[in-house]
Amino acid sequence: MDILREKIAQAVSILREKKIDVWLTFVRESATMPDPALAMIAGHHTTWETAWIITRSGDTIAIAGSLDVEAIKSKSHYREVIPYVQGIRPELLRILDRIRPRTIAVNFSKDSVTADGLTHGLYLVLMDHLKGTKYEHRIVSSEGIVSALRGRKTHAEISRIRKAIAVTLDIFDRVTGFLGPGKTEKDVADFIMKHVRAMGLEPAWESEHCPAVFTGPEHAGAHFGPTNRKIEGGHVLNIDFGVKVDGYCSDLQRTWYIRRKGERRPPLEVTRGMMVIRDAIKAAVEALRPGSISWKVDDVARSHITSNGYPEYPHALGHQIGKAAHDGGIGLMPRWDRYGRLPFGRVEAGQVFTVEPRLPIEGYGVATIEEIVWVTEQRTVFLSKPQTRVWVV
Amino acid sequence: MDILREKIAQAVSILREKKIDVWLTFVRESATMPDPALAMIAGHHTTWETAWIITRSGDTIAIAGSLDVEAIKSKSHYREVIPYVQGIRPELLRILDRIRPRTIAVNFSKDSVTADGLTHGLYLVLMDHLKGTKYEHRIVSSEGIVSALRGRKTHAEISRIRKAIAVTLDIFDRVTGFLGPGKTEKDVADFIMKHVRAMGLEPAWESEHCPAVFTGPEHAGAHFGPTNRKIEGGHVLNIDFGVKVDGYCSDLQRTWYIRRKGERRPPLEVTRGMMVIRDAIKAAVEALRPGSISWKVDDVARSHITSNGYPEYPHALGHQIGKAAHDGGIGLMPRWDRYGRLPFGRVEAGQVFTVEPRLPIEGYGVATIEEIVWVTEQRTVFLSKPQTRVWVV
Repeated sequence: MDILREKIAQAVSILREKKIDVWLTFVRESATMPDPALAMIAGHHTTWETAWIITRSGDTIAIAGSLDVEAIKSKSHYREVIPYVQGIRPELLRILDRIRPRTIAVNFSKDSVTADGLTHGLYLVLMDHLKGTKYEHRIVSSEGIVSALRGRKTHAEISRIRKAIAVTLDIFDRVTGFLGPGKTEKDVADFIMKHVRAMGLEPAWESEHCPAVFTGPEHAGAHFGPTNRKIEGGHVLNIDFGVKVDGYCSDLQRTWYIRRKGERRPPLEVTRGMMVIRDAIKAAVEALRPGSISWKVDDVARSHITSNGYPEYPHALGHQIGKAAHDGGIGLMPRWDRYGRLPFGRVEAGQVFTVEPRLPIEGYGVATIEEIVWVTEQRTVFLSKPQTRVWVV
Repeated sequence: MDILREKIAQAVSILREKKIDVWLTFVRESATMPDPALAMIAGHHTTWETAWIITRSGDTIAIAGSLDVEAIKSKSHYREVIPYVQGIRPELLRILDRIRPRTIAVNFSKDSVTADGLTHGLYLVLMDHLKGTKYEHRIVSSEGIVSALRGRKTHAEISRIRKAIAVTLDIFDRVTGFLGPGKTEKDVADFIMKHVRAMGLEPAWESEHCPAVFTGPEHAGAHFGPTNRKIEGGHVLNIDFGVKVDGYCSDLQRTWYIRRKGERRPPLEVTRGMMVIRDAIKAAVEALRPGSISWKVDDVARSHITSNGYPEYPHALGHQIGKAAHDGGIGLMPRWDRYGRLPFGRVEAGQVFTVEPRLPIEGYGVATIEEIVWVTEQRTVFLSKPQTRVWVV
């Protein structure tokens, strides 16, 4: 399945829906600063200023430095590939004059990182190219296009995400047999990475904290790499981990309890905390459907947790996932300044979200589960087999 | 040697020299769109809006989302690490009010990719944060800071680049024993990558065309991956390849001639083309010293080639190299539109450049050599042992 071709076709239909004439992904040295749109609609990097153009009428045109042209042609995703030697401006204006677009969407967004691929300096360069033409006043943000394109997963994309999830859950199963007192967080991470490398895969985000492993009541906290802290009886242990399979990511969290000597069951505090998390996820997923306002979905889980006497989690309930572990666009986010306008967006069919509330269990660690769910017109589906209780070692 | 600490100290002295009060590297989800400045002065990625602040008086302050803070603290490169939960604005303004900067340099540049790490959407977010304060009119480009910081290599950096070069030249030696008629460009690339992986290293740029291998008169041209084209007697063969060692890159090209059956020496056309390239490099390097205007250095090599009756190369003579294979800042570039203002910059001591002219040898292939040289106050030094004639197989 050629996903690039599928996504380019989808982009054309999104341009029609949003009534935008041209989508211009404008890049240079894109391996250094990789505009996230490239992975969706170009599939590779170029050195010199390059215009990847998709039009509402279905045209695909790439204007690129002469030495980049052969590589673009060989992929044959763009019908027209136009080389230049000294500067892109004349060819860019010639093509725009041919298309005569009333709106030109370029990749900037205050709110969505994956729609914000155009750097500010290169934006100024583009505006210099367009200066004195009618096009300089026709530039709009491509945020809506990018969010729709990344959000509305095709079946081929869902099947890749499923594969990444299956690999991750399988590794979690193996981890259960490996965990035990005396091993360190780093030992657990190494065990996981050995399996990842043996399969020729890569972690879904920076290897510094993928996998992330946290054991016991005083661990370092989220977004921190595994340490030399040793697992002990009485610890609650979390792993946050995902892999990339065929360019698509998983991102899941599971929680284990390490029994003390002679202990048969986990303490009630642990069991209760995990039940609250499980039910918070269940309630939020029930509220998650096409048309839901995203902050309200977060609020369902957040209120469930606080009404059970726990503090609220200091982050969003979930984010979209796909090509990137954090795939951009709306998320299940509280109305906090740092999330900008994203919490006010509406959920669409085809989107895939993580759902990842957490709460502290005093003296033991953190209760946290992260699932991945797929919103369809009919219902919202768990792509990951949900964890329903703490896994006991 | 803690290069990060060394580069942060160097940044402070550059701020003094350039009379800029604050250098603000403003990022979010930086693993998705990695501002190239981070590798020089932060060393790792964060998820939420983060302000990496270095001041002229030597202060280092990071303001980051609460879940990112522990990881920053653990590196202890920033004296002050300030967490926020809901939004960065209050803390950012509090810190600016304490410093009271008259100039705040942020990472945007029309000309230099490595100084253009701030995306346009995030630039708008930053301007929203500063709106209504005196700071909104004090924003300047950090291009001069970034160019100086990346360009002026410390001895620790030079020693890492030397290591990357040594590995590359060693692999080229091994390749000479491997080359032969019937093998494909891909076979040669696989042979090289086997060695790279065995050493636990990674290629210096996108693995799709690193190494790049071109054999014979009708190969695909620069910036294209190796193909199934077979090596034959009478081919001129080029390899463009580099590795990353301890975070620093090499980028070198070498040229081989594959003899026909019974042929003792390469044809005169090949020998002559390679001599012209060798002499073009020699002349350019003699013209390359602190204070040289960069386009004039390109012009020395370019004129040498055209005055010998060959067409000029369709690219720049060379680029800076360091953390990235294309390290940004001024290069040895012709005055073409696509290079912006970079050809008009002056060379500084401490900079490391590639020098890579090329010319076609009709019926055989391309003559090209790429060397790496280091500009010092006294003289310009070859870091790579120069190729002086075609290598014969």
